[in-house]
Amino acid sequence: MDSAAGPASPSLRWDEPPEGPVIALLDQRRLPAEEVELICTDVPVLVDAIRTLAVRGAPLLGIAGAYGVALAAVRGFDVQQAAEQLAHARPTAVNLAYGVRRALGAYEQAVKDGADVRRAAAAALAEARALHREDAEASARMAAHGLALLRELLPGGGYRVLTHCNTGSLVSGGEGTALAVASAVHRAGQLRRLWVDETRPLLQGARLTAYEAARAGMAYTLLTDNAAGSLFAAGEVDAVLIGADRIAADGSVANKVGSYPLAVLARYHHVPFIVVAPTTTVDLDTPEGSAIEVEQRPGHEVTEFAAPLVTGVAAEPGMGVPAAPLGTQAYNPAFDVTPPELVTAIVTENGVVSPVTRPGLAELCRGPEKER
Amino acid sequence: MDSAAGPASPSLRWDEPPEGPVIALLDQRRLPAEEVELICTDVPVLVDAIRTLAVRGAPLLGIAGAYGVALAAVRGFDVQQAAEQLAHARPTAVNLAYGVRRALGAYEQAVKDGADVRRAAAAALAEARALHREDAEASARMAAHGLALLRELLPGGGYRVLTHCNTGSLVSGGEGTALAVASAVHRAGQLRRLWVDETRPLLQGARLTAYEAARAGMAYTLLTDNAAGSLFAAGEVDAVLIGADRIAADGSVANKVGSYPLAVLARYHHVPFIVVAPTTTVDLDTPEGSAIEVEQRPGHEVTEFAAPLVTGVAAEPGMGVPAAPLGTQAYNPAFDVTPPELVTAIVTENGVVSPVTRPGLAELCRGPEKER
Repeated sequence: MDSAAGPASPSLRWDEPPEGPVIALLDQRRLPAEEVELICTDVPVLVDAIRTLAVRGAPLLGIAGAYGVALAAVRGFDVQQAAEQLAHARPTAVNLAYGVRRALGAYEQAVKDGADVRRAAAAALAEARALHREDAEASARMAAHGLALLRELLPGGGYRVLTHCNTGSLVSGGEGTALAVASAVHRAGQLRRLWVDETRPLLQGARLTAYEAARAGMAYTLLTDNAAGSLFAAGEVDAVLIGADRIAADGSVANKVGSYPLAVLARYHHVPFIVVAPTTTVDLDTPEGSAIEVEQRPGHEVTEFAAPLVTGVAAEPGMGVPAAPLGTQAYNPAFDVTPPELVTAIVTENGVVSPVTRPGLAELCRGPEKER
Repeated sequence: MDSAAGPASPSLRWDEPPEGPVIALLDQRRLPAEEVELICTDVPVLVDAIRTLAVRGAPLLGIAGAYGVALAAVRGFDVQQAAEQLAHARPTAVNLAYGVRRALGAYEQAVKDGADVRRAAAAALAEARALHREDAEASARMAAHGLALLRELLPGGGYRVLTHCNTGSLVSGGEGTALAVASAVHRAGQLRRLWVDETRPLLQGARLTAYEAARAGMAYTLLTDNAAGSLFAAGEVDAVLIGADRIAADGSVANKVGSYPLAVLARYHHVPFIVVAPTTTVDLDTPEGSAIEVEQRPGHEVTEFAAPLVTGVAAEPGMGVPAAPLGTQAYNPAFDVTPPELVTAIVTENGVVSPVTRPGLAELCRGPEKER
């Protein structure tokens, strides 16, 4: 292990080549067509990578934010300004601001304790690495809790699980959130089928979840988001497993657009709707769902396809191949909000809350659940 | 008017150039990028156009089927065989088989009545033209009934209407079905917003409905299918208007995949879910929803995008740009089935049935509703 080594994900690693430290990202915009690393030598490049979804997914955004602060500190940039820019690169995922705060706090504490700039930067980097490791551990614990919950809710096994967006090792220091549970089910020999929503507009399900499922050898089938209704109606879905970008104190879940319709379908068909997220995704300062800011993304993500490569989205408006008449206006929220009454359970690294209540969620956020 | 003239739609016309009669189709696969006519000189070309969705939409399929039989008759091909091939080109839309049956019936009756082949062919063509005209008239009546229904259900006007797939003049001898109602609302100055589902996988909403809405000057906004949930949750949808490909005797509605999830969302949010279709779409021989054969389409419609033009779908598997890892299996039903209890009303040219009951629907199919 060289001095630069720390926890490494397929999607993000800290590296220290002779030219100076960098954050190396697997560019998720270009999957599954090609595996290309995007090297961030400064914070503006990282902020742009976050905004354009080269790096994405709530837990990974937290890790990226923390390393971003460390990068600014180690390279001698303005740490406060970097933290500010990173924390606001995207509005909905609470983990991003959390990761930034953790690394910035460590840096400031070190300065306060009399450390020089170099040692303060090392403290920020150590904190980012700690967060990275914690997230990997949280993944493993969520996977175990999720598998136990499925067995409790649906004795018998042979699960047909529907998932939306991408929540696997690409978004995490470990195996992810919802997809980590699916992976645990798969390893236990109990995954009969993983139904993968393609997840328009950016096709994270088709491009990323299918990519991870294929590599893991799962039995998976891709579908357009609007075909999920037919599966529910045919009794082909035993459970829905999704992640979260922010969970309010009342248990409202902001997640990738299309999650709420699945929750309504799941309720109508009496199918468990299970949210898997680390407690860092719970924001007790957001009292309820209506207080969650939902990011509105550019319309050209809907009206155009990238050319020549289909990587989910054209880099700039007008650069893609039009799928709609020129001048078409699009409504393109990145997320939607599912109220707690439609959520069967929230699975965290500290345990499960079900039914989802404000005190139950607050309790989980305080620490690991006592033995029941 | 020359001898070849008859009713003409933007999407389909019978023509008689010196080389012999043809069916000229607006190739809907290439919209909105370009307006190109596809000339069918024989039935296999027309069957292929139907299968690949160059021509589509329940009412228009009926018209195309009738003209196809006429084409075979006029050109001296095997009429029975042509009818057989046309009727089975796609399984779900009952109108296709109906149109074929009408033209074939006229042909056979003429033969039985002692007509020579030329006169029997003329009878088939006359029947196709009659069906074409009837469909235009049915459109106008559906539009009037639909507008009246909206005013009754939602006094006040200023409607925000959500629609799915394409149901306008491109699928009809007239202005279409659901979109004909939206057009009538627009002309009455009461359309506040037309929400257009993009309608994956073939993007008929983005490519075709947006194209028609733009040309008609409607205030329309495009969205991914899975963003409709957010609109419902925000109270931004006053009514859902969709078409149908087959309606069973119990009022179950087979329509473009994604209709059923909208019906469930509409019910959950107490929003009227209105189906607009001519009585030729009602199949009293199909007793209930479970008896409707739902067409399963090739997986590459989901896993690939056409290249170089994005026209909804690659012509052949492997010819498009992959959106998912190679070898990905896809579940790709063309339609779903909405049970009558989720349908607020069915609007036909003969009037409205609401609530949707088996006797009420049968009554409408017998003829125009009496004055209420």
